[in-house]
Amino acid sequence: MEAPELERVHRRTSIIAHHLLNGSSSTAETRQLEASACVQYASPESYEKIELYVDEMRRIMDGHDSDARDWVYRIMEESPLFLSPRRPRKGRIFLIPNYDEPMEQQRELTMRRIVYLRDRGMYDGWLTCGREMEMRRFALIESSVLFDHSLGIKLGVQFFLWGLGIRFLGTKYHHDKWLRDTEKLEVKGCFAMTELGHGSNVRGIETVATYDSEKEEFIINTPCESAQKYWIGGAGKHANHTIIFAQLEIEGENKGVHAFAARIRDADGKICPNIRIADCGHKIGLNGIDNGRIWFDNLRIPRLNLLNSLSNVSPDGKYTSVISDPDQRFAALLAPLTLGRINITVGAVYSSKIALAIAIRYSLTRRAFSITPGGPEVPLLDYPSHQRRLLPLLAKTYGGSCAVTFLKTIYVERTPEMIKPIHVYSSAFKAVFTWQNMIILQECREACGGQGVKTENRVGLHKGEFDVQSTFEGDNNVLMQQVSKVLLSEYVVAQRRGKPFKGLGLEHMNGPRPVIPANLTSSVIRNAEFQIDLLRLRERDLLERFSKEVSDHQARGAKKDYAIVLSFQVGEELGRAFSDRAVLQTLLDVEAAAAEGPLKEVMALLRSMYVLIIVEEDTSFLRYGLISREGAAVVRREVATLCGELRPHALSIVSSLGIPSSLLCPLAFDWIDANSWDASESSQPNP
Amino acid sequence: MEAPELERVHRRTSIIAHHLLNGSSSTAETRQLEASACVQYASPESYEKIELYVDEMRRIMDGHDSDARDWVYRIMEESPLFLSPRRPRKGRIFLIPNYDEPMEQQRELTMRRIVYLRDRGMYDGWLTCGREMEMRRFALIESSVLFDHSLGIKLGVQFFLWGLGIRFLGTKYHHDKWLRDTEKLEVKGCFAMTELGHGSNVRGIETVATYDSEKEEFIINTPCESAQKYWIGGAGKHANHTIIFAQLEIEGENKGVHAFAARIRDADGKICPNIRIADCGHKIGLNGIDNGRIWFDNLRIPRLNLLNSLSNVSPDGKYTSVISDPDQRFAALLAPLTLGRINITVGAVYSSKIALAIAIRYSLTRRAFSITPGGPEVPLLDYPSHQRRLLPLLAKTYGGSCAVTFLKTIYVERTPEMIKPIHVYSSAFKAVFTWQNMIILQECREACGGQGVKTENRVGLHKGEFDVQSTFEGDNNVLMQQVSKVLLSEYVVAQRRGKPFKGLGLEHMNGPRPVIPANLTSSVIRNAEFQIDLLRLRERDLLERFSKEVSDHQARGAKKDYAIVLSFQVGEELGRAFSDRAVLQTLLDVEAAAAEGPLKEVMALLRSMYVLIIVEEDTSFLRYGLISREGAAVVRREVATLCGELRPHALSIVSSLGIPSSLLCPLAFDWIDANSWDASESSQPNP
Repeated sequence: MEAPELERVHRRTSIIAHHLLNGSSSTAETRQLEASACVQYASPESYEKIELYVDEMRRIMDGHDSDARDWVYRIMEESPLFLSPRRPRKGRIFLIPNYDEPMEQQRELTMRRIVYLRDRGMYDGWLTCGREMEMRRFALIESSVLFDHSLGIKLGVQFFLWGLGIRFLGTKYHHDKWLRDTEKLEVKGCFAMTELGHGSNVRGIETVATYDSEKEEFIINTPCESAQKYWIGGAGKHANHTIIFAQLEIEGENKGVHAFAARIRDADGKICPNIRIADCGHKIGLNGIDNGRIWFDNLRIPRLNLLNSLSNVSPDGKYTSVISDPDQRFAALLAPLTLGRINITVGAVYSSKIALAIAIRYSLTRRAFSITPGGPEVPLLDYPSHQRRLLPLLAKTYGGSCAVTFLKTIYVERTPEMIKPIHVYSSAFKAVFTWQNMIILQECREACGGQGVKTENRVGLHKGEFDVQSTFEGDNNVLMQQVSKVLLSEYVVAQRRGKPFKGLGLEHMNGPRPVIPANLTSSVIRNAEFQIDLLRLRERDLLERFSKEVSDHQARGAKKDYAIVLSFQVGEELGRAFSDRAVLQTLLDVEAAAAEGPLKEVMALLRSMYVLIIVEEDTSFLRYGLISREGAAVVRREVATLCGELRPHALSIVSSLGIPSSLLCPLAFDWIDANSWDASESSQPNP
Repeated sequence: MEAPELERVHRRTSIIAHHLLNGSSSTAETRQLEASACVQYASPESYEKIELYVDEMRRIMDGHDSDARDWVYRIMEESPLFLSPRRPRKGRIFLIPNYDEPMEQQRELTMRRIVYLRDRGMYDGWLTCGREMEMRRFALIESSVLFDHSLGIKLGVQFFLWGLGIRFLGTKYHHDKWLRDTEKLEVKGCFAMTELGHGSNVRGIETVATYDSEKEEFIINTPCESAQKYWIGGAGKHANHTIIFAQLEIEGENKGVHAFAARIRDADGKICPNIRIADCGHKIGLNGIDNGRIWFDNLRIPRLNLLNSLSNVSPDGKYTSVISDPDQRFAALLAPLTLGRINITVGAVYSSKIALAIAIRYSLTRRAFSITPGGPEVPLLDYPSHQRRLLPLLAKTYGGSCAVTFLKTIYVERTPEMIKPIHVYSSAFKAVFTWQNMIILQECREACGGQGVKTENRVGLHKGEFDVQSTFEGDNNVLMQQVSKVLLSEYVVAQRRGKPFKGLGLEHMNGPRPVIPANLTSSVIRNAEFQIDLLRLRERDLLERFSKEVSDHQARGAKKDYAIVLSFQVGEELGRAFSDRAVLQTLLDVEAAAAEGPLKEVMALLRSMYVLIIVEEDTSFLRYGLISREGAAVVRREVATLCGELRPHALSIVSSLGIPSSLLCPLAFDWIDANSWDASESSQPNP
């Protein structure tokens, strides 16, 4: 990019020249606010090219059901419950809660919004539908997350944790009793799994359910303070039912963790006898969610309230299960969490999209400094360094979009054999894209300068609102360890039994080791085959290294679990390598399906950026000799070149992210007008 | 570290065993909350060794005036204005604002706290003292930041931006008129520099001050909406005076940016005529600060209100300045910002200390999973991966502590020749340690799991409260560019004029190029001389590369400023390399002054960790061939080894950070007790 390019768009009237023209003290007296002087705002649409591929690109970014998403955005725009507390400028409305309210008010408003969406029919069939509606249901709940994470999470608790928990873990009795009423919000549910003393390690929970065969009841107890249920969304205020996870005990014998359903509040909202509830208190985000803590004191529930799709207890206390292996039974019990993990992953990707759309639109309209003496100020996005900050993040988010569509698709088409891959992909993607979201939010917040910390501008707000995503529904580090453990066991099986790899995209391990050209040129490293070869080679190399390191520790006497613990450095790199390769595979699939043309060309640019930024940022390519120093230098130059090539597409790409303007913020549009004097906002105290 | 080590501390009574012993349904009925069952909390002090060096280490971590800091902590503990809204458990109090309040209330409370501290004499002499009190003044204001960033920033605006702004930029007339009243809070000041349209690029501001020689007044005007003063802390509500930065215009000629003082509210708090003020609105943190926007409409102020230490205007409109070069004059005008930058840097380091103290104390008492089948759960910090997450951050924060003490010392001992180095060091350290703080807060938040998002636990809270630090008082990216530009000009001068490097620690460039041993062993890479050689070599290498790249762009026709813009990749690495080397130098100086013994040994461990984690994380060492692949592998292993060696010191080191227990949080102590049932917190609605 050349200097004249930087000066292309320049409308600013120099303040100095203005002063010279109007500089006498007599005119100074009369010089009032003039809209024509100083910094001017021009909509980026008025001078940037909008490519024709935007609509088609949006379908790829959304992945499915853009019409359902637009429907949710529209019905939110139709209700004052969702409107920004600031009055609209030039008729432009924004959807955002008023975060300058104590959490009690935020919670009540979240509940009122949920009721409004019910009245508009949003949840019809969510718990009673067949699979054909599942993709649309994804789209609907995902759209609510864009407005406010609390709204999305509260819906997730109600429908996915409680509602689908009942559907998956319960049987017809439970379905008939609760599903329809849950859709209508007559039943408000929560999901009491986590305890103060046990989060990730669910098997260690301490709540006890003892069977009393005389009365045909379970007695639920919180035996100690560390066993109090903790973080239970909905429990603090609104929920009247809960699923309880507890150690099942029959005649003194522990049967492991099981799930039960119980009523916790009566029709008047009063907490039921033998239950105590307290609030989790103020949080750094999600204050629209009423997280609560629950204690059970000899709470008696009917035998039929055991959610018995996996295991059952007969009236006389006989325990039976359709899954004999306790490990497998425990894994099946946690299956409802997979869906939550998918939702979180998608939410993280959309949160990144909002941040990037705002930061990039602002960077096209905000100018700072000049690059020639006395020259005009330059729009931020025309600085190569600013492009380098933001445009690779756009490629990473494009990667996330394709990856989550793939993930949702295999979920909806699930078969018994796909349960493991769904678990592995959802674990890896959840960790990678929630971490990525925090990085993107931080970079975008800083790229917006101080404006990024204004709540109404959303970018910084999401940092707090989405922060919990990296540790809830599976701590990211724990999830990544699980991914590398699964890969290791696939490797061990393939090695020991001489069987080929099958599934998880590991089939490439059956073929010969990819060969990376010694001489990396620009055209080589933009080649899709080279790119997938490189990421496969890295995955293979790390899997071999991980296996060897674990074996070495075992040979020195460490037990297997501990050997894995000791090999954490390579284990972490392996989980990341698996995820990166799997994401690239989805990009290649989407690209292959696209017709030749400008859209496919920009997809190729984004895909190359996706890969090359990974190579540039991750030291493992150099550390393990997957590329040479010279190769690394070529990659680095190419990243800068790609930034320049993506720059003219920046507005088109952010326009294709599927975020309606009402879910952006004042900073993304005419931020000078949005900040103009408005007498109703005067700080003058009322007389 | 061996497996038995991991099992060393184990007090948990297995819930399963408990069930087997008490498993009949009749006893289940009576099984109530028993403190002895389940997960137990034991204070880490009861089983971890506390080293004797803690007190001496604290003096190094604080750097100076630990007694003054303790005094501030004590007077805060004595007033309910600072106490946590939750009632104390076992008599343990915590100092933290109630963040579950609308911003209006938060602001009023911040002001009341400031008044309380005045009544206790905290600010006596802050604006009228000599240099001998400056270090103590640093200590006092730094301590207020630990309680609440809003409190610290509001004090910073009042005393450093307004108060010392008047002192530096004004002359005797202004000092006599305002300084004493400012100490007493009779004058409440703010600092109106930033505008909606111009932040980092202060020279581009659009507010105009026109001199009227007839009336001997300046007429201040906001010529357009982008010129409105923005983010002005204190302006929204409390300030009655301000410093105004504006383009000075005399008889139609622009004299550049100058500073003026003006009254903005009268004694009743009413906004003065010809001024309009609005609020900046809700923010993602710092809601205890009343940031405001200001418009001036022909505001007339007396000629004497020009802050005239640098430039003056005579009654008949003659302009004179003690600095003839406009660039130098402008730089001198911004000098008051240096102090703010130093405060921000120190605040970032202390914020990291709080987060690390909390996350590490928690990780010693929180257990999860076992590493042997059926074995006990293991404390988080006994996992090598958890050590790797937290302990390098402790070394980085130790680095920050030594660096900020160095920075404050050269500031207090300032001479005219030191102005440039102070600017460069404060810019580099501000950028590096505020970015580092955000990374540390994020990692510590995640290491605390869900508890990290509870506001009362501070770790996550600081993410929002301190976020603005990376863009205010100089955007970090802009500051780092300034650093590499200064280094480049030093290089050019040395090359062209054949002069040796002098200052900024660059003297090493005058000697021969350091030689890095081909065979890196553990003992080699722990050697201080090797470490400083490596970081110097990196700095030298990057400075040479940066110079060459800029020259190459110039040779191809780019103007110098644009050539620097195009060389941003190496420029960023260079700024980082300068800072890292400068920090290591301060560590070596502090270590050299310590007596032989356990303290010096742990300082050496921290220093080695500080260097090796940089080498592991920054790809530039491998990319530019500063170390070999084999060397990188040795470094990586050593980082893990150092983690194991620092692990037994973890509690001692966090105990030496100088954070009183009242400024930690419930999670850092008996978090089970802190969460125990308290009937007063019941969610049961009142009857």
